[in-house]
Amino acid sequence: MAAIKVHGSPISTATMRVIACLHEKELDFEFVVLDMANQQHKEEPFLSLNPFGQVPAFEDGDLKLFESRAITKYVARRYADKGTELISRDPEKMAIIGVWLEVESQQYDPPASKLVKELALNPWLGFPTNPAAVEENEAKLGTVLDVYEKRLSRSKYMAGDSFTLADLHHLPTIKYLMNTKAKKLFELRPHVSAWVADITARPAWSKVLAMQNTN
Amino acid sequence: MAAIKVHGSPISTATMRVIACLHEKELDFEFVVLDMANQQHKEEPFLSLNPFGQVPAFEDGDLKLFESRAITKYVARRYADKGTELISRDPEKMAIIGVWLEVESQQYDPPASKLVKELALNPWLGFPTNPAAVEENEAKLGTVLDVYEKRLSRSKYMAGDSFTLADLHHLPTIKYLMNTKAKKLFELRPHVSAWVADITARPAWSKVLAMQNTN
Repeated sequence: MAAIKVHGSPISTATMRVIACLHEKELDFEFVVLDMANQQHKEEPFLSLNPFGQVPAFEDGDLKLFESRAITKYVARRYADKGTELISRDPEKMAIIGVWLEVESQQYDPPASKLVKELALNPWLGFPTNPAAVEENEAKLGTVLDVYEKRLSRSKYMAGDSFTLADLHHLPTIKYLMNTKAKKLFELRPHVSAWVADITARPAWSKVLAMQNTN
Repeated sequence: MAAIKVHGSPISTATMRVIACLHEKELDFEFVVLDMANQQHKEEPFLSLNPFGQVPAFEDGDLKLFESRAITKYVARRYADKGTELISRDPEKMAIIGVWLEVESQQYDPPASKLVKELALNPWLGFPTNPAAVEENEAKLGTVLDVYEKRLSRSKYMAGDSFTLADLHHLPTIKYLMNTKAKKLFELRPHVSAWVADITARPAWSKVLAMQNTN
């Protein structure tokens, strides 16, 4: 029995973020798939793992965590010596990784997640797409990607010359958006486009996509 | 000349978050006030410090950072031995602090910041308040504070028995909201209300408020 358990859904971006991190760190884990269609994430015992009723939740022995970005940071720190090094022990390098982790969370994710909902999830679930919300969030995401284009013209990855958690956190939303018309926002920017091609080609990410196809 | 410089505005919640952290760590710093009314934050040289054109930006010698939550995490780590201990070296304790840092960022801050804009900044700037946005975000913030009430019935602070960065990050939005009708959301919940009274009474926070009155 694996000490690490992830409770979530294979199609949830936050769940995919955590599982991508576990594969990068080459850790064994048990994936507990929740029946979200039947609201299993809004009931006990799941609410004891995450009082907000959102996937994923995470266990490592007796330690219970939630919030995908808190889980990945814990995994990267606790298992620093395993698999890919996703953070840094150097305070100044870690500070730069920290800036781009916050940029993903505060600048990129709000418009990216709204576009995932409007352009990928709503059509899939049979809900209508709101064109005004699409237009507004494409404009916001474009502004963020202009900053990324400049940044990635100077360094191969968000926080410097190596792949870190600051890149990894983008993968789930990029995966959905590249199957929608919003992919043009990435393709129009050559450095962003090369970065997307690089980070989505990682073996750990292929394992996340393979899991989606078998669950 | 102080090695640490904060470029920002005394009324900006993100600037206040960084300055509160510096006072908790008992660090000297220089505060460079930007003329935001004249869009100084949208022009060079500020854009070289923060490409998103948002306050604050931060310098510690040659290290240049932006995003308030990345700055506070750097300060808490880099100056771990000074002033108040705001994080933990223990991976499991740090993981719990990390969960509640993400809760502030992902769950609490979006509705809290929208209410600050609608109920505090718009009236102050002479802009209209949108009642539908107020209602929607009061409901969202109430749901978050229900989780906080339960959490704070079990531990004195968000991440356990001592004040950490996870509490500190809430201070600027709380300060604004306690001067609006949204204060009832905090006052109706006894454990939340006691926590607000406790964290807003900290000497480091009084220094932030004193600075607001002199800039």
